[in-house]
Amino acid sequence: MRISPLLTDLYELTMLAGYLEEGMAEKTAVFDLYFRTNPFAGGYAVFAGLEPALDCLENLHFTAEEIDYLGGLGLFKPRFLDFLRAFRFRGTVVAPPEGTVVFANEPLLTVSGALPEVQLVETVLLNIINFQTLVATKAARICHAAAGGEVIEFGLRRAQGPDGGLSASRAACIGGAKGTSNVLAGMRYGLPVRGTHAHSWVQSFADELTAFRAYADAFPDSSVLLVDTYDTLKSGVPNAITVARELRDQGHSLRGIRLDSGDLAYLSREARRMFDEAGFPEVRILASNELDEQVIDSIREEGGRVDIYGVGTKLATAAGTGGGALGGVYKLVAIDGQPKMKITSDMAKATLPGSKMVLRAIGPEGGYIQDVVCLKDDAVATGSTVFDPVNPLQQTTLPGTIRLVDLRQTVMADGRRTLAPEPLDRMAERCRQEMALLPQGCRRFVNPHRYKVSISAQLKELRCTLIQAAGGERKG
Amino acid sequence: MRISPLLTDLYELTMLAGYLEEGMAEKTAVFDLYFRTNPFAGGYAVFAGLEPALDCLENLHFTAEEIDYLGGLGLFKPRFLDFLRAFRFRGTVVAPPEGTVVFANEPLLTVSGALPEVQLVETVLLNIINFQTLVATKAARICHAAAGGEVIEFGLRRAQGPDGGLSASRAACIGGAKGTSNVLAGMRYGLPVRGTHAHSWVQSFADELTAFRAYADAFPDSSVLLVDTYDTLKSGVPNAITVARELRDQGHSLRGIRLDSGDLAYLSREARRMFDEAGFPEVRILASNELDEQVIDSIREEGGRVDIYGVGTKLATAAGTGGGALGGVYKLVAIDGQPKMKITSDMAKATLPGSKMVLRAIGPEGGYIQDVVCLKDDAVATGSTVFDPVNPLQQTTLPGTIRLVDLRQTVMADGRRTLAPEPLDRMAERCRQEMALLPQGCRRFVNPHRYKVSISAQLKELRCTLIQAAGGERKG
Repeated sequence: MRISPLLTDLYELTMLAGYLEEGMAEKTAVFDLYFRTNPFAGGYAVFAGLEPALDCLENLHFTAEEIDYLGGLGLFKPRFLDFLRAFRFRGTVVAPPEGTVVFANEPLLTVSGALPEVQLVETVLLNIINFQTLVATKAARICHAAAGGEVIEFGLRRAQGPDGGLSASRAACIGGAKGTSNVLAGMRYGLPVRGTHAHSWVQSFADELTAFRAYADAFPDSSVLLVDTYDTLKSGVPNAITVARELRDQGHSLRGIRLDSGDLAYLSREARRMFDEAGFPEVRILASNELDEQVIDSIREEGGRVDIYGVGTKLATAAGTGGGALGGVYKLVAIDGQPKMKITSDMAKATLPGSKMVLRAIGPEGGYIQDVVCLKDDAVATGSTVFDPVNPLQQTTLPGTIRLVDLRQTVMADGRRTLAPEPLDRMAERCRQEMALLPQGCRRFVNPHRYKVSISAQLKELRCTLIQAAGGERKG
Repeated sequence: MRISPLLTDLYELTMLAGYLEEGMAEKTAVFDLYFRTNPFAGGYAVFAGLEPALDCLENLHFTAEEIDYLGGLGLFKPRFLDFLRAFRFRGTVVAPPEGTVVFANEPLLTVSGALPEVQLVETVLLNIINFQTLVATKAARICHAAAGGEVIEFGLRRAQGPDGGLSASRAACIGGAKGTSNVLAGMRYGLPVRGTHAHSWVQSFADELTAFRAYADAFPDSSVLLVDTYDTLKSGVPNAITVARELRDQGHSLRGIRLDSGDLAYLSREARRMFDEAGFPEVRILASNELDEQVIDSIREEGGRVDIYGVGTKLATAAGTGGGALGGVYKLVAIDGQPKMKITSDMAKATLPGSKMVLRAIGPEGGYIQDVVCLKDDAVATGSTVFDPVNPLQQTTLPGTIRLVDLRQTVMADGRRTLAPEPLDRMAERCRQEMALLPQGCRRFVNPHRYKVSISAQLKELRCTLIQAAGGERKG
């Protein structure tokens, strides 16, 4: 599906016009897309958004209407508008597959090609990858808290715009959600769609029992009844048990109930007991109402008996530390083959220059030990010494027991995808497996273990050289 | 533009199928859309999103492909799919105009019509109104902090998906932003587009001065130069002054500089001094980098000399207390003319039954005094006693000096808009004017004055009657 190339910051276009003006449109450039701190003050992130990003790049072109609009701004010369008319993205993209567990300060996407092409796509790539990676990470955290309980994404009504909802549903399912209430996301991405009913359904009938009977009549094998419109334990659950009995007599079965208010730990325990005593151990309990990983954690700690967590707002808007945004950046690392870096007094914000690889060190049992960012022609191997990117005094020698795996592959060349799109459930399965391979402390919510992302000796040297050379550059 | 009706929670569709099954599709219903607490723990909200919401309702229909998808879910009977094929929204919508200052617990949209029609649109209306109202409110807060300084929305790259960015740009401009970097939003909504250049522009050249000269050459009258790639005060600003002189010699002028890191209060004071001393008092200073209302407040308090604030992530994702989501709800208040309410032990969550009006009491000087929610046929006037909706012991008598204005109007009847779409700058102007009419304490960021939203005596009585009647209902 085409995303308009005008979905970009104005400065991408003015810079393109400038490059053309300066005769620099034929230069080649390399950009890295990465983030500087793990989202939610957590120990990892789950990479997502690649497939929509590649789809966008493959279909990138300006319509006549869009060119007319740009012409009308009074900023651009006819020659530049002609250049845009013929504009296509023909660059190369290297990336990990979606569902891969990734970390701060390692390149996710590396985009290379003609300078104007790789510059223009900055904003849209950041928009797509930032948000989907953020939501996939949130989903993985929530699923970790649910500890085997099912998680369903229910956030569309409070998502950030229509597409905020669609992207969120997709990414949530990569991170571990088993379905969504968002029907369009179900259709577009092949996700399981799930739902119950609203309070308004109950209110539309003379009484709660009549409302439950009517819903069960319409969906005799898939009803999940919302039991808190009047009084959960005195009215909702008893009425749901009555309906469960009636369904069983007719050869059907009640699928579950939903708790949407009150003390979910207590109410789920009581509801479980009432259904078990009535002979319905198979009826499942779904809980919703402002859930997130912390709330789910506490429900489980208090012995809650929730089978399915319906997680809305906090998942779809990725609420939590960091405020609903992943601070991904897109930084120039080489131009015409020359490594470039942004020099700054804050080493944590200095970029890693040059075309690079990300290697993952995997232990003898398959667990992840650490990652190493190195130059493309680097000879990093077991026995190599690698360095902390911010504090070069911190160094490690890669042990002989590990093997090094290249985390990324070329997913686009000459503007065409090199791999068939992957089914979403395979990405979800990858995420599930990789989460299990992380050092345990990385999954902790509070003060998680800091997974090491080191740089190679050669990359460290290149950075030193460029910093020294920049002394002259500053004088301009 | 058509939004797919599948952009909805599955339960809206299963409830519709149930209503059809039960012979209830011809019933009429009234829903209120409102929120329960002001966003950002603030004193008000700015209503936005109406025009896109009405556009969605007017164009709502199912495509053959969508019907096929629903058929394939195995949930719905052919009769229901036929019903959806013919589905259109023909209801009535009452709402305030966009840019109106609104408060918690007063109906924003009231949607009435055939039960299935007004039920189905719940999710999409909440999605659009929740997010745009949230961002417009955030923009108004940020503009209040900027105290006359210009605010530009720069958030696309970290917005929640492509449309998250588009909706955010639109709503930000209703709330007071003077432009956006998002070019597609500029084209679609007629917003001013603005921008500077990136660090990568500077890095693409041999040195900073060459990069600045090249940009000024391409845009001799509209350049805003980013001065922090190497060293703001030692390199960036002196180089920008050199370019400002060269432009002046050629009969052009440098528009401004952008500060994107470091101590923005200090750097803006120093940069201002350097430009003033060099004879360029007209060159404007734009600051960006994780700004929000609090950061802008502190920059101004420390004597910062910022003319334009480029606000990105925190505006486009509406970060702050409340976590990027407005908790708007859509509640059934009448069915077949009978008032309905959701009974709950928590009075703050109990709904206000029946078809209602929202009146605003305006003082002799034009300032807003309080709002009153009343029934449609209520005789609320000066001298009437009105009540706090949660604590009925708190009551006020409306003084004789006020006049009462109906806050809302019918914006859609029989599924058609009754008013021509309003230009966005008129909504922005309304917001600006209304902000000035608020009691001053409402605009405060910390512990703001709580603007009174009362209910009429008749509405209070209706609520009591329904709560008493519900005693029987609970026994089901």
